[in-house]
Amino acid sequence: MNILVINCGSSSLKYQLINMSNEEPLAVGLVERIGIEGSILTQKVEGRDKYIIKQLMTSHKDAIKLVLNVLVDSTNGVIKSMDEIAAIGHRVVHGGEKYSSSVLVTDEVMKDLEDCAKLAPLHNPPNIIGINACKALMPNTPMVVVFDTAFHQTMPEKAFLYAIPYELYKEHNIRKYGFHGTSHKYVSDKVAEVMCKDVKDLKIITCHLSNGSSITAVMNSQSVDTSMGFTPLEGLVMGTRCGDIDPAVIFYLINELGYSAEEVNTLLNKKSGALGVSGVSSDFRDIISAAAEGNTRAKIALDMFYYRVRKYIGSYAAAMGGVDCIVFTAGVGENSVEIRAEICKGLEFFGLEIDDERNNVRGKIAELSTEDSKVKAFAIPTNEELMIAKDTISLITK
Amino acid sequence: MNILVINCGSSSLKYQLINMSNEEPLAVGLVERIGIEGSILTQKVEGRDKYIIKQLMTSHKDAIKLVLNVLVDSTNGVIKSMDEIAAIGHRVVHGGEKYSSSVLVTDEVMKDLEDCAKLAPLHNPPNIIGINACKALMPNTPMVVVFDTAFHQTMPEKAFLYAIPYELYKEHNIRKYGFHGTSHKYVSDKVAEVMCKDVKDLKIITCHLSNGSSITAVMNSQSVDTSMGFTPLEGLVMGTRCGDIDPAVIFYLINELGYSAEEVNTLLNKKSGALGVSGVSSDFRDIISAAAEGNTRAKIALDMFYYRVRKYIGSYAAAMGGVDCIVFTAGVGENSVEIRAEICKGLEFFGLEIDDERNNVRGKIAELSTEDSKVKAFAIPTNEELMIAKDTISLITK
Repeated sequence: MNILVINCGSSSLKYQLINMSNEEPLAVGLVERIGIEGSILTQKVEGRDKYIIKQLMTSHKDAIKLVLNVLVDSTNGVIKSMDEIAAIGHRVVHGGEKYSSSVLVTDEVMKDLEDCAKLAPLHNPPNIIGINACKALMPNTPMVVVFDTAFHQTMPEKAFLYAIPYELYKEHNIRKYGFHGTSHKYVSDKVAEVMCKDVKDLKIITCHLSNGSSITAVMNSQSVDTSMGFTPLEGLVMGTRCGDIDPAVIFYLINELGYSAEEVNTLLNKKSGALGVSGVSSDFRDIISAAAEGNTRAKIALDMFYYRVRKYIGSYAAAMGGVDCIVFTAGVGENSVEIRAEICKGLEFFGLEIDDERNNVRGKIAELSTEDSKVKAFAIPTNEELMIAKDTISLITK
Repeated sequence: MNILVINCGSSSLKYQLINMSNEEPLAVGLVERIGIEGSILTQKVEGRDKYIIKQLMTSHKDAIKLVLNVLVDSTNGVIKSMDEIAAIGHRVVHGGEKYSSSVLVTDEVMKDLEDCAKLAPLHNPPNIIGINACKALMPNTPMVVVFDTAFHQTMPEKAFLYAIPYELYKEHNIRKYGFHGTSHKYVSDKVAEVMCKDVKDLKIITCHLSNGSSITAVMNSQSVDTSMGFTPLEGLVMGTRCGDIDPAVIFYLINELGYSAEEVNTLLNKKSGALGVSGVSSDFRDIISAAAEGNTRAKIALDMFYYRVRKYIGSYAAAMGGVDCIVFTAGVGENSVEIRAEICKGLEFFGLEIDDERNNVRGKIAELSTEDSKVKAFAIPTNEELMIAKDTISLITK
């Protein structure tokens, strides 16, 4: 059985067709510049050259039509007909408070997604457009939505509420939601499997470190706290996002330095984080290179990044009353030996000891801590697409 | 030798005249409603009834004149003449980056205080007025300023920088400063003394819990991180201040709910925190009573407060690579048995064990942890006035 996984951005679309019998992707593709001059589709199939099509795509419907054509293409495709796609799983960023797990697409679900759009104005609208385009092209194929927020819906009030008037939560849904839920769930389940333990018996801290980063406390298989908040702006030092900051800085920028609120919003989302501090790049690989060449601002940006992740690990250990293992995942977490080593420095006090040789690993499952380390550390490559496909298959076969 | 300690607010003035031979106050007083109808001075002297004067005071100079008259008053005073005041120590909130310790008042210092006023517009201006009033009335008495920010000037860049464009720090001084420095320094020195250790050998977490709360990591006798930031808005859940929050909430309130930036500023500073969540009061004693009577919002506000302090303790333990002792101080920290007990729940994993009987103590120095507890906990009443007087005496006798 094959599941098509779709992740629509405002002008892009990522997809994977996954063969669920071996959980391997048949095809992995990306459409860019939808509705913009220079639209392009790139598809990768194991053992073949990249297949690239440059062709005007004015809408997400155009893009999905092309994706389906490419998948069934007699030369470059991987399946014979669309009948071989059992279902489609859609990644949706925001499910609000209503959705604590994935659901089959219904009219009611579509209405709820529209209602949530205000909470994720950059993300939910293209997600909705993608689902509607698929429904139009494949009206008889079951569809599932998998929410980035769903896994975090188990957080208790003390973790998800902000200390603002309670009415702002009750009437306007202002609270911490958290994101990257599919990834945090995937790697927390996976690490339990690797440790041969029941995930319900573990206290896990999952560090999803990439351009956008978040860290989650997982106890008894549930998210109990996470660093992203009402939006993905809160928490760690990210590529271009500021993460945690005194909210009064915003009023100072407006009142004393003459910024508009919109300019501050853009500044904190797009020009801050590791880019803003280093002045070099939003990509940690570039920043590490610059720091190695003696760039002091790049060095400071890295130190801030390490330090804040380390502090979150400490705070989540305190939140759970201890920690059994720490997981590093996503681009930076899976691949940066140096970043993992630096983050873990100073955590010996609660029983974590990193083994430098074991930690010298990239892009694969690995135990990073010493044999005797009381708290374990692992690198676990994330696989949000497989998680979405698994949720999809479980819902359509129910 | 007697030192007069003065703490000027916008319409109030607190003072203590301290006899430095035994470090005890000769008189403790408060002037309220300066420049407002109903000005009143209240002075307490050990062993005497409260002395109250209701008299129009149109300025801080009027208030200080009255304070001096009351101190030397033949019936209600405590000294014979102003010559018995060796020096005056002034509490000043913001010293910016220039002042990492207390200083004698000079013209240059006064100019720097003016320059810092933009960073603390509510606090520095009345502090300056108070110093000028004292200088006019006692031109030959040496004066010292003691800054709330000074103790935190030892924080490393990774702790005090925000992940925003570096230029905003370099050109506009936007960074974490931290406050309550005099209190954090006093109790960290004091706990070392009580433990018969050198403060330089200890990793201490000091929890100053009151209406405004902050928590500091003190290593090698120096502040290395603190929860208040650019302003006192960041950090813990406070009486009316929100503490940590996704900065994007501000833009949502402005863009979606029609607030002005100034209204959000007021909301987060004056209507949030434990008051906003509980809807009951900004005073933790009221909230504890309400929670005990079954008020669920009061219960949530307390849970949030405990939880966030506990997370900060965990993060600062991680920041310092461990912790030797945790200190509770200020109104709530010195007096609330329940709050201390709740905060410490779940910290057994790094070696903290609270002794319920020892913890049943209010307003005095006490060890709260068990005999065997690896990490110690103490209640240490703070004494910012004595700290200011000590700094003053050490500067004038140099």
